[in-house]
Amino acid sequence: MGSSVNKTAAILIIGNEVLSGRTKDANVNAIATKLNEIGVTLSEGRVVRDIESEIIHAVNELRQKYDYVFTTGGIGTTHDDITAASVAKAFGVDVRENAEALRLLIANYHGKLTQSARKMAMIPTGAKLIANPVTIAPGFYLENVFVMAGVPIIAAAMFDDVIGKITHGSPIVSKSLTCHLPESFVSERFADLQSAYPSLDLGSYPRWGSAGFNLNLVIRGVDEDLIIRAFNDLEALIVELTNAFDKMKANDR
Amino acid sequence: MGSSVNKTAAILIIGNEVLSGRTKDANVNAIATKLNEIGVTLSEGRVVRDIESEIIHAVNELRQKYDYVFTTGGIGTTHDDITAASVAKAFGVDVRENAEALRLLIANYHGKLTQSARKMAMIPTGAKLIANPVTIAPGFYLENVFVMAGVPIIAAAMFDDVIGKITHGSPIVSKSLTCHLPESFVSERFADLQSAYPSLDLGSYPRWGSAGFNLNLVIRGVDEDLIIRAFNDLEALIVELTNAFDKMKANDR
Repeated sequence: MGSSVNKTAAILIIGNEVLSGRTKDANVNAIATKLNEIGVTLSEGRVVRDIESEIIHAVNELRQKYDYVFTTGGIGTTHDDITAASVAKAFGVDVRENAEALRLLIANYHGKLTQSARKMAMIPTGAKLIANPVTIAPGFYLENVFVMAGVPIIAAAMFDDVIGKITHGSPIVSKSLTCHLPESFVSERFADLQSAYPSLDLGSYPRWGSAGFNLNLVIRGVDEDLIIRAFNDLEALIVELTNAFDKMKANDR
Repeated sequence: MGSSVNKTAAILIIGNEVLSGRTKDANVNAIATKLNEIGVTLSEGRVVRDIESEIIHAVNELRQKYDYVFTTGGIGTTHDDITAASVAKAFGVDVRENAEALRLLIANYHGKLTQSARKMAMIPTGAKLIANPVTIAPGFYLENVFVMAGVPIIAAAMFDDVIGKITHGSPIVSKSLTCHLPESFVSERFADLQSAYPSLDLGSYPRWGSAGFNLNLVIRGVDEDLIIRAFNDLEALIVELTNAFDKMKANDR
Protein backbone atom coordinates (compact mmCIF):
# COMPACT_ATOMS: atom_id res chain seq x y z
CA MET A 1 0.00 0.00 0.00
CA GLY A 2 0.94 3.62 -0.30
CA SER A 3 3.74 5.37 -2.01
CA SER A 4 6.94 3.48 -2.61
CA VAL A 5 8.82 6.73 -1.91
CA ASN A 6 7.47 6.92 1.65
CA LYS A 7 9.91 5.85 4.35
CA THR A 8 9.07 2.81 6.49
CA ALA A 9 9.11 2.58 10.26
CA ALA A 10 8.68 0.22 13.18
CA ILE A 11 7.66 0.96 16.74
CA LEU A 12 9.16 -0.94 19.67
CA ILE A 13 7.36 -0.74 23.02
CA ILE A 14 9.77 -1.62 25.83
CA GLY A 15 8.40 -2.59 29.22
CA ASN A 16 6.82 -5.36 31.24
CA GLU A 17 3.77 -3.23 32.04
CA VAL A 18 2.06 -3.67 28.65
CA LEU A 19 2.65 -7.44 28.58
CA SER A 20 1.54 -7.84 32.19
CA GLY A 21 -1.79 -6.23 31.35
CA ARG A 22 -1.21 -3.38 33.81
CA THR A 23 -1.03 -0.77 31.06
CA LYS A 24 -2.96 -0.43 27.81
CA ASP A 25 -0.46 0.81 25.27
CA ALA A 26 -1.46 4.17 23.78
CA ASN A 27 1.79 5.00 21.97
CA VAL A 28 1.32 2.78 18.89
CA ASN A 29 -1.93 4.47 17.95
CA ALA A 30 -0.72 8.00 18.67
CA ILE A 31 2.49 7.59 16.69
CA ALA A 32 0.71 5.73 13.84
CA THR A 33 -1.71 8.63 13.46
CA LYS A 34 1.08 11.21 13.28
CA LEU A 35 3.07 9.06 10.82
CA ASN A 36 0.09 9.10 8.43
CA GLU A 37 0.16 12.89 8.47
CA ILE A 38 3.85 13.13 7.60
CA GLY A 39 3.82 10.29 5.07
CA VAL A 40 5.81 7.59 6.84
CA THR A 41 4.52 4.00 6.68
CA LEU A 42 4.34 2.20 10.02
CA SER A 43 5.19 -1.36 9.00
CA GLU A 44 5.60 -3.29 12.25
CA GLY A 45 5.12 -3.06 15.99
CA ARG A 46 6.73 -5.01 18.81
CA VAL A 47 6.39 -5.18 22.57
CA VAL A 48 9.28 -6.63 24.57
CA ARG A 49 10.07 -6.96 28.25
CA ASP A 50 12.79 -5.09 30.15
CA ILE A 51 15.34 -7.76 29.27
CA GLU A 52 18.59 -6.62 27.70
CA SER A 53 18.93 -9.46 25.19
CA GLU A 54 15.34 -8.99 24.01
CA ILE A 55 15.77 -5.25 23.50
CA ILE A 56 19.06 -5.74 21.63
CA HIS A 57 17.57 -8.41 19.37
CA ALA A 58 14.51 -6.32 18.50
CA VAL A 59 16.46 -3.08 17.95
CA ASN A 60 18.97 -4.75 15.66
CA GLU A 61 16.37 -6.62 13.63
CA LEU A 62 14.12 -3.59 13.21
CA ARG A 63 16.80 -0.98 12.45
CA GLN A 64 18.11 -3.12 9.61
CA LYS A 65 14.65 -3.81 8.23
CA TYR A 66 13.07 -0.34 8.32
CA ASP A 67 14.11 3.26 7.67
CA TYR A 68 13.20 4.36 11.21
CA VAL A 69 12.68 2.68 14.58
CA PHE A 70 10.80 4.48 17.34
CA THR A 71 11.10 3.04 20.84
CA THR A 72 9.08 4.01 23.90
CA GLY A 73 9.73 3.10 27.53
CA GLY A 74 12.56 2.27 29.88
CA ILE A 75 14.46 5.57 30.04
CA GLY A 76 13.55 6.59 33.59
CA THR A 77 15.51 6.27 36.81
CA THR A 78 14.38 2.83 37.97
CA HIS A 79 16.30 -0.45 38.09
CA ASP A 80 14.27 -1.78 35.17
CA ASP A 81 15.00 1.28 32.99
CA ILE A 82 17.63 -0.39 30.83
CA THR A 83 16.74 0.94 27.37
CA ALA A 84 19.68 3.37 26.96
CA ALA A 85 22.27 0.77 27.97
CA SER A 86 20.61 -1.90 25.80
CA VAL A 87 20.40 0.33 22.71
CA ALA A 88 24.07 1.23 23.20
CA LYS A 89 24.94 -2.48 23.23
CA ALA A 90 22.84 -3.04 20.10
CA PHE A 91 25.05 -0.48 18.35
CA GLY A 92 28.24 -1.71 20.03
CA VAL A 93 28.95 1.61 21.74
CA ASP A 94 29.27 2.72 25.37
CA VAL A 95 26.86 4.83 27.38
CA ARG A 96 28.31 7.96 28.88
CA GLU A 97 27.11 11.06 30.64
CA ASN A 98 25.92 13.50 28.01
CA ALA A 99 26.94 17.06 28.92
CA GLU A 100 23.87 18.71 27.39
CA ALA A 101 21.49 16.21 29.03
CA LEU A 102 23.21 16.75 32.39
CA ARG A 103 22.92 20.53 32.02
CA LEU A 104 19.17 20.21 31.34
CA LEU A 105 18.66 17.90 34.33
CA ILE A 106 20.68 20.07 36.76
CA ALA A 107 18.68 23.15 35.74
CA ASN A 108 15.41 21.24 36.10
CA TYR A 109 16.30 19.83 39.54
CA HIS A 110 17.50 23.28 40.71
CA GLY A 111 20.94 21.88 41.45
CA LYS A 112 19.58 19.06 43.66
CA LEU A 113 20.17 16.27 41.18
CA THR A 114 20.22 12.88 42.91
CA GLN A 115 22.43 10.05 41.67
CA SER A 116 19.28 8.26 40.46
CA ALA A 117 18.08 11.23 38.43
CA ARG A 118 21.58 11.69 37.04
CA LYS A 119 21.18 8.26 35.43
CA MET A 120 18.89 9.95 32.89
CA ALA A 121 21.90 11.80 31.43
CA MET A 122 23.59 8.49 30.53
CA ILE A 123 23.08 7.99 26.81
CA PRO A 124 24.91 6.06 24.10
CA THR A 125 28.08 7.61 22.74
CA GLY A 126 27.33 9.47 19.53
CA ALA A 127 23.60 9.82 20.22
CA LYS A 128 21.88 13.18 19.89
CA LEU A 129 19.10 14.43 22.15
CA ILE A 130 15.34 14.46 21.64
CA ALA A 131 13.64 17.35 23.44
CA ASN A 132 11.23 16.67 26.30
CA PRO A 133 9.20 19.81 27.06
CA VAL A 134 7.08 17.94 29.63
CA THR A 135 9.57 16.62 32.19
CA ILE A 136 12.85 17.85 30.63
CA ALA A 137 14.82 14.54 30.84
CA PRO A 138 15.58 14.04 27.13
CA GLY A 139 15.21 11.13 24.76
CA PHE A 140 17.92 10.44 22.20
CA TYR A 141 18.56 9.09 18.73
CA LEU A 142 21.39 7.13 17.24
CA GLU A 143 21.40 6.70 13.45
CA ASN A 144 17.81 5.65 12.64
CA VAL A 145 16.72 4.61 16.15
CA PHE A 146 14.71 7.17 18.17
CA VAL A 147 14.41 6.43 21.88
CA MET A 148 11.52 8.05 23.77
CA ALA A 149 9.80 7.83 27.15
CA GLY A 150 6.90 5.45 27.74
CA VAL A 151 4.46 7.82 29.46
CA PRO A 152 2.09 8.75 26.61
CA ILE A 153 2.09 12.54 27.03
CA ILE A 154 5.88 12.57 27.19
CA ALA A 155 6.21 10.16 24.25
CA ALA A 156 3.86 12.37 22.21
CA ALA A 157 5.83 15.52 23.04
CA MET A 158 9.14 13.83 22.19
CA PHE A 159 7.69 12.51 18.94
CA ASP A 160 6.80 16.08 17.93
CA ASP A 161 10.53 16.82 18.13
CA VAL A 162 11.36 13.63 16.18
CA ILE A 163 9.01 14.74 13.37
CA GLY A 164 11.49 17.52 12.55
CA LYS A 165 14.37 15.04 12.29
CA ILE A 166 12.99 12.50 9.80
CA THR A 167 12.14 12.53 6.09
CA HIS A 168 8.50 13.20 5.31
CA GLY A 169 6.66 11.63 2.38
CA SER A 170 3.20 11.78 0.90
CA PRO A 171 0.60 11.99 3.68
CA ILE A 172 -1.58 8.91 3.93
CA VAL A 173 -5.27 9.74 3.77
CA SER A 174 -8.34 7.56 4.09
CA LYS A 175 -12.05 7.58 3.38
CA SER A 176 -14.48 5.08 4.83
CA LEU A 177 -18.13 4.15 4.89
CA THR A 178 -20.17 1.92 7.15
CA CYS A 179 -22.89 -0.47 5.99
CA HIS A 180 -24.88 -3.29 7.53
CA LEU A 181 -24.14 -6.04 5.02
CA PRO A 182 -22.47 -9.31 6.08
CA GLU A 183 -18.77 -9.17 5.23
CA SER A 184 -19.03 -12.38 3.21
CA PHE A 185 -21.71 -10.75 1.00
CA VAL A 186 -19.32 -7.90 0.13
CA SER A 187 -15.92 -9.63 0.02
CA GLU A 188 -15.80 -10.83 -3.59
CA ARG A 189 -16.80 -7.49 -5.17
CA PHE A 190 -14.65 -5.62 -2.65
CA ALA A 191 -11.67 -7.70 -3.77
CA ASP A 192 -12.46 -6.72 -7.39
CA LEU A 193 -12.38 -3.08 -6.33
CA GLN A 194 -9.01 -3.65 -4.64
CA SER A 195 -7.73 -5.17 -7.91
CA ALA A 196 -8.96 -2.12 -9.83
CA TYR A 197 -6.98 0.18 -7.52
CA PRO A 198 -3.77 -1.71 -6.73
CA SER A 199 -1.97 1.37 -5.36
CA LEU A 200 -4.64 1.85 -2.68
CA ASP A 201 -5.21 -0.22 0.44
CA LEU A 202 -8.80 -1.43 0.90
CA GLY A 203 -9.80 -2.90 4.24
CA SER A 204 -13.02 -4.33 5.62
CA TYR A 205 -13.66 -4.28 9.37
CA PRO A 206 -16.71 -5.92 10.91
CA ARG A 207 -17.79 -4.72 14.32
CA TRP A 208 -20.24 -6.18 16.81
CA GLY A 209 -21.16 -3.79 19.55
CA SER A 210 -24.08 -2.67 21.66
CA ALA A 211 -25.62 -1.13 18.50
CA GLY A 212 -25.53 -4.50 16.72
CA PHE A 213 -23.49 -5.40 13.67
CA ASN A 214 -21.90 -3.11 11.13
CA LEU A 215 -19.18 -3.29 8.51
CA ASN A 216 -16.66 -0.48 8.08
CA LEU A 217 -15.00 -0.30 4.65
CA VAL A 218 -11.84 1.78 4.43
CA ILE A 219 -9.79 3.07 1.49
CA ARG A 220 -6.28 4.34 2.25
CA GLY A 221 -3.50 5.73 0.13
CA VAL A 222 -1.48 8.77 -0.82
CA ASP A 223 -3.29 9.89 -4.02
CA GLU A 224 -6.35 11.82 -2.91
CA ASP A 225 -7.95 12.07 -6.38
CA LEU A 226 -7.62 8.34 -6.84
CA ILE A 227 -9.10 7.73 -3.37
CA ILE A 228 -12.12 9.87 -4.27
CA ARG A 229 -12.64 7.90 -7.49
CA ALA A 230 -12.33 4.58 -5.65
CA PHE A 231 -14.67 5.84 -2.93
CA ASN A 232 -17.33 6.81 -5.49
CA ASP A 233 -17.07 3.30 -6.94
CA LEU A 234 -17.36 1.85 -3.43
CA GLU A 235 -20.49 3.89 -2.66
CA ALA A 236 -22.14 2.69 -5.91
CA LEU A 237 -21.14 -0.89 -5.10
CA ILE A 238 -22.63 -0.77 -1.61
CA VAL A 239 -25.91 0.70 -2.93
CA GLU A 240 -26.08 -2.13 -5.49
CA LEU A 241 -25.25 -4.83 -2.93
CA THR A 242 -27.65 -3.43 -0.33
CA ASN A 243 -30.48 -3.54 -2.90
CA ALA A 244 -29.56 -7.11 -3.83
CA PHE A 245 -29.37 -8.12 -0.17
CA ASP A 246 -32.74 -6.54 0.67
CA LYS A 247 -34.33 -8.29 -2.33
CA MET A 248 -32.89 -11.63 -1.23
CA LYS A 249 -34.20 -11.08 2.30
CA ALA A 250 -37.66 -10.10 0.96
CA ASN A 251 -37.76 -13.30 -1.13
CA ASP A 252 -36.94 -15.28 2.01
CA ARG A 253 -40.11 -14.12 3.71
CA MET B 1 9.86 -12.59 37.03
CA GLY B 2 7.40 -15.16 38.18
CA SER B 3 7.52 -18.87 38.35
CA SER B 4 9.94 -20.70 36.16
CA VAL B 5 7.36 -23.46 35.81
CA ASN B 6 4.85 -21.15 34.14
CA LYS B 7 4.56 -21.51 30.37
CA THR B 8 5.54 -18.57 28.17
CA ALA B 9 3.52 -17.02 25.36
CA ALA B 10 3.61 -14.43 22.62
CA ILE B 11 0.74 -12.57 20.99
CA LEU B 12 0.80 -11.73 17.28
CA ILE B 13 -1.65 -9.10 16.03
CA ILE B 14 -2.15 -9.49 12.28
CA GLY B 15 -3.62 -6.61 10.28
CA ASN B 16 -2.90 -3.26 8.71
CA GLU B 17 -5.62 -1.56 10.75
CA VAL B 18 -3.61 -1.34 13.99
CA LEU B 19 -0.48 -0.03 12.23
CA SER B 20 -2.49 2.46 10.16
CA GLY B 21 -3.88 3.99 13.34
CA ARG B 22 -7.48 3.14 12.35
CA THR B 23 -7.90 0.67 15.21
CA LYS B 24 -6.62 0.76 18.78
CA ASP B 25 -5.65 -2.79 19.63
CA ALA B 26 -7.62 -4.20 22.55
CA ASN B 27 -6.59 -7.84 22.28
CA VAL B 28 -3.13 -7.62 23.88
CA ASN B 29 -4.51 -6.22 27.10
CA ALA B 30 -7.52 -8.57 27.25
CA ILE B 31 -5.41 -11.67 26.63
CA ALA B 32 -2.61 -10.48 28.96
CA THR B 33 -5.13 -10.11 31.78
CA LYS B 34 -6.53 -13.62 31.27
CA LEU B 35 -3.04 -15.11 31.03
CA ASN B 36 -2.22 -13.71 34.49
CA GLU B 37 -5.22 -15.55 35.90
CA ILE B 38 -4.21 -18.92 34.45
CA GLY B 39 -0.49 -18.52 35.17
CA VAL B 40 0.97 -18.14 31.69
CA THR B 41 3.66 -15.47 31.16
CA LEU B 42 3.09 -13.17 28.18
CA SER B 43 6.66 -12.55 27.03
CA GLU B 44 6.35 -10.69 23.74
CA GLY B 45 3.88 -8.97 21.43
CA ARG B 46 4.07 -8.20 17.73
CA VAL B 47 1.93 -6.39 15.19
CA VAL B 48 2.45 -7.21 11.51
CA ARG B 49 0.71 -6.23 8.30
CA ASP B 50 -1.37 -8.53 6.08
CA ILE B 51 1.73 -9.62 4.19
CA GLU B 52 2.37 -13.35 3.84
CA SER B 53 6.14 -13.23 4.33
CA GLU B 54 5.78 -11.07 7.45
CA ILE B 55 3.21 -13.39 9.01
CA ILE B 56 5.30 -16.49 8.23
CA HIS B 57 8.46 -14.92 9.67
CA ALA B 58 6.74 -13.84 12.88
CA VAL B 59 4.87 -17.13 13.40
CA ASN B 60 8.01 -19.21 12.90
CA GLU B 61 10.18 -17.06 15.14
CA LEU B 62 7.62 -16.90 17.94
CA ARG B 63 6.50 -20.54 17.92
CA GLN B 64 10.10 -21.66 18.36
CA LYS B 65 10.80 -19.12 21.08
CA TYR B 66 7.72 -19.51 23.31
CA ASP B 67 5.46 -22.29 24.54
CA TYR B 68 2.35 -20.72 23.01
CA VAL B 69 1.59 -18.21 20.25
CA PHE B 70 -1.80 -16.50 20.09
CA THR B 71 -2.66 -14.69 16.87
CA THR B 72 -5.59 -12.37 16.25
CA GLY B 73 -6.87 -11.03 12.92
CA GLY B 74 -7.07 -11.96 9.26
CA ILE B 75 -9.41 -14.96 9.33
CA GLY B 76 -12.47 -13.33 7.74
CA THR B 77 -13.72 -13.48 4.16
CA THR B 78 -11.91 -10.48 2.66
CA HIS B 79 -9.03 -10.40 0.16
CA ASP B 80 -6.63 -9.32 2.93
CA ASP B 81 -7.64 -12.20 5.24
CA ILE B 82 -4.57 -14.33 4.60
CA THR B 83 -3.77 -15.60 8.10
CA ALA B 84 -4.89 -19.24 7.61
CA ALA B 85 -2.94 -19.64 4.37
CA SER B 86 0.13 -17.92 5.85
CA VAL B 87 0.12 -20.01 9.03
CA ALA B 88 -0.18 -23.15 6.88
CA LYS B 89 2.90 -22.06 4.92
CA ALA B 90 4.77 -21.35 8.15
CA PHE B 91 4.18 -25.00 9.09
CA GLY B 92 4.78 -26.28 5.55
CA VAL B 93 1.28 -27.75 5.22
CA ASP B 94 -1.67 -27.10 2.89
CA VAL B 95 -4.95 -25.43 3.69
CA ARG B 96 -8.03 -27.48 2.99
CA GLU B 97 -11.73 -27.32 3.63
CA ASN B 98 -12.35 -28.56 7.16
CA ALA B 99 -15.49 -30.70 7.30
CA GLU B 100 -16.48 -29.66 10.81
CA ALA B 101 -15.91 -25.94 10.08
CA LEU B 102 -17.98 -26.26 6.89
CA ARG B 103 -20.81 -27.97 8.78
CA LEU B 104 -20.86 -25.13 11.34
CA LEU B 105 -20.88 -22.46 8.62
CA ILE B 106 -23.62 -24.12 6.56
CA ALA B 107 -25.84 -24.40 9.64
CA ASN B 108 -25.16 -20.77 10.55
CA TYR B 109 -25.88 -19.44 7.04
CA HIS B 110 -29.06 -21.57 6.84
CA GLY B 111 -27.76 -23.36 3.74
CA LYS B 112 -27.05 -20.08 1.86
CA LEU B 113 -23.29 -20.19 2.20
CA THR B 114 -21.60 -17.95 -0.37
CA GLN B 115 -18.23 -18.86 -1.86
CA SER B 116 -16.72 -15.98 0.14
CA ALA B 117 -18.10 -17.23 3.44
CA ARG B 118 -17.00 -20.76 2.56
CA LYS B 119 -13.42 -19.44 2.62
CA MET B 120 -13.69 -19.43 6.42
CA ALA B 121 -13.74 -23.25 6.40
CA MET B 122 -10.30 -23.35 4.77
CA ILE B 123 -7.83 -24.18 7.52
CA PRO B 124 -4.37 -25.75 7.64
CA THR B 125 -4.20 -29.52 7.34
CA GLY B 126 -3.92 -31.07 10.80
CA ALA B 127 -5.31 -28.02 12.61
CA LYS B 128 -8.10 -28.40 15.18
CA LEU B 129 -10.92 -25.90 15.68
CA ILE B 130 -11.35 -23.15 18.26
CA ALA B 131 -15.01 -22.49 19.10
CA ASN B 132 -16.58 -19.13 18.20
CA PRO B 133 -19.87 -18.74 20.07
CA VAL B 134 -20.31 -15.17 18.75
CA THR B 135 -20.30 -15.53 14.96
CA ILE B 136 -19.75 -19.31 14.63
CA ALA B 137 -16.88 -19.20 12.04
CA PRO B 138 -14.18 -21.01 14.03
CA GLY B 139 -10.56 -20.25 14.80
CA PHE B 140 -8.02 -23.06 14.78
CA TYR B 141 -4.81 -24.28 16.36
CA LEU B 142 -1.84 -26.16 14.99
CA GLU B 143 0.71 -27.44 17.52
CA ASN B 144 1.35 -24.42 19.79
CA VAL B 145 -0.09 -21.70 17.52
CA PHE B 146 -3.67 -20.55 18.26
CA VAL B 147 -5.33 -18.51 15.51
CA MET B 148 -8.24 -16.26 16.48
CA ALA B 149 -10.37 -13.49 14.99
CA GLY B 150 -9.35 -9.83 15.35
CA VAL B 151 -12.70 -8.37 16.47
CA PRO B 152 -12.20 -8.05 20.25
CA ILE B 153 -15.45 -9.67 21.42
CA ILE B 154 -14.86 -12.64 19.10
CA ALA B 155 -11.17 -12.89 20.07
CA ALA B 156 -12.18 -12.88 23.74
CA ALA B 157 -14.77 -15.62 23.23
CA MET B 158 -12.32 -17.74 21.25
CA PHE B 159 -9.65 -17.25 23.89
CA ASP B 160 -12.04 -18.63 26.51
CA ASP B 161 -12.04 -21.86 24.49
CA VAL B 162 -8.23 -21.75 24.15
CA ILE B 163 -7.91 -21.52 27.95
CA GLY B 164 -9.15 -25.12 28.15
CA LYS B 165 -6.50 -26.32 25.70
CA ILE B 166 -3.29 -24.98 27.29
CA THR B 167 -1.30 -25.77 30.43
CA HIS B 168 -2.05 -23.51 33.39
CA GLY B 169 0.55 -22.46 35.93
CA SER B 170 0.64 -20.37 39.07
CA PRO B 171 -1.62 -17.32 38.70
CA ILE B 172 0.27 -14.05 38.60
CA VAL B 173 -0.98 -11.60 41.19
CA SER B 174 -0.02 -8.02 41.91
CA LYS B 175 -0.32 -5.37 44.59
CA SER B 176 0.35 -1.70 44.01
CA LEU B 177 0.35 1.64 45.74
CA THR B 178 0.41 5.19 44.47
CA CYS B 179 2.48 8.03 45.95
CA HIS B 180 3.44 11.54 44.91
CA LEU B 181 7.21 11.27 45.20
CA PRO B 182 9.46 11.92 42.19
CA GLU B 183 10.56 8.60 40.68
CA SER B 184 14.22 9.55 41.04
CA PHE B 185 13.72 10.03 44.80
CA VAL B 186 12.43 6.46 45.13
CA SER B 187 14.50 4.55 42.54
CA GLU B 188 17.57 3.64 44.58
CA ARG B 189 15.68 2.24 47.58
CA PHE B 190 13.12 0.62 45.28
CA ALA B 191 15.99 -1.18 43.51
CA ASP B 192 17.19 -2.43 46.93
CA LEU B 193 13.70 -3.80 47.55
CA GLN B 194 13.79 -5.55 44.17
CA SER B 195 17.14 -7.10 45.15
CA ALA B 196 15.64 -8.32 48.43
CA TYR B 197 12.83 -10.08 46.54
CA PRO B 198 14.48 -11.42 43.36
CA SER B 199 11.59 -13.77 42.53
CA LEU B 200 9.14 -10.85 42.37
CA ASP B 201 8.85 -8.22 39.66
CA LEU B 202 8.85 -4.63 40.95
CA GLY B 203 7.86 -1.84 38.57
CA SER B 204 7.59 1.92 38.93
CA TYR B 205 5.23 3.87 36.66
CA PRO B 206 5.06 7.66 36.73
CA ARG B 207 1.91 9.27 35.38
CA TRP B 208 1.17 12.87 34.47
CA GLY B 209 -2.51 13.51 34.00
CA SER B 210 -5.17 16.10 34.65
CA ALA B 211 -4.81 15.37 38.39
CA GLY B 212 -1.09 16.19 38.30
CA PHE B 213 1.77 13.82 38.89
CA ASN B 214 1.75 10.49 40.68
CA LEU B 215 3.93 7.41 40.87
CA ASN B 216 2.44 3.93 40.81
CA LEU B 217 4.59 1.19 42.35
CA VAL B 218 3.68 -2.38 41.46
CA ILE B 219 4.76 -5.75 42.86
CA ARG B 220 3.97 -8.82 40.75
CA GLY B 221 4.63 -12.49 41.23
CA VAL B 222 3.18 -15.91 41.89
CA ASP B 223 3.82 -16.25 45.66
CA GLU B 224 1.08 -14.31 47.40
CA ASP B 225 2.61 -14.52 50.90
CA LEU B 226 5.88 -13.18 49.59
CA ILE B 227 4.06 -10.38 47.74
CA ILE B 228 2.33 -9.36 50.97
CA ARG B 229 5.67 -9.26 52.80
CA ALA B 230 7.26 -7.21 50.03
CA PHE B 231 4.25 -4.91 49.95
CA ASN B 232 4.49 -4.27 53.70
CA ASP B 233 8.15 -3.38 53.23
CA LEU B 234 7.18 -1.10 50.33
CA GLU B 235 4.55 0.70 52.41
CA ALA B 236 7.07 1.31 55.19
CA LEU B 237 9.62 2.53 52.65
CA ILE B 238 7.21 5.02 51.10
CA VAL B 239 6.21 6.40 54.51
CA GLU B 240 9.90 6.88 55.32
CA LEU B 241 10.70 8.49 51.96
CA THR B 242 7.63 10.75 52.06
CA ASN B 243 8.69 12.04 55.50
CA ALA B 244 12.22 12.64 54.22
CA PHE B 245 10.92 14.40 51.13
CA ASP B 246 8.54 16.63 53.10
CA LYS B 247 11.36 17.54 55.49
CA MET B 248 13.63 18.43 52.56
CA LYS B 249 10.89 20.59 51.03
CA ALA B 250 10.28 22.34 54.38
CA ASN B 251 14.00 23.10 54.69
CA ASP B 252 13.87 24.63 51.21
CA ARG B 253 11.38 27.30 52.31
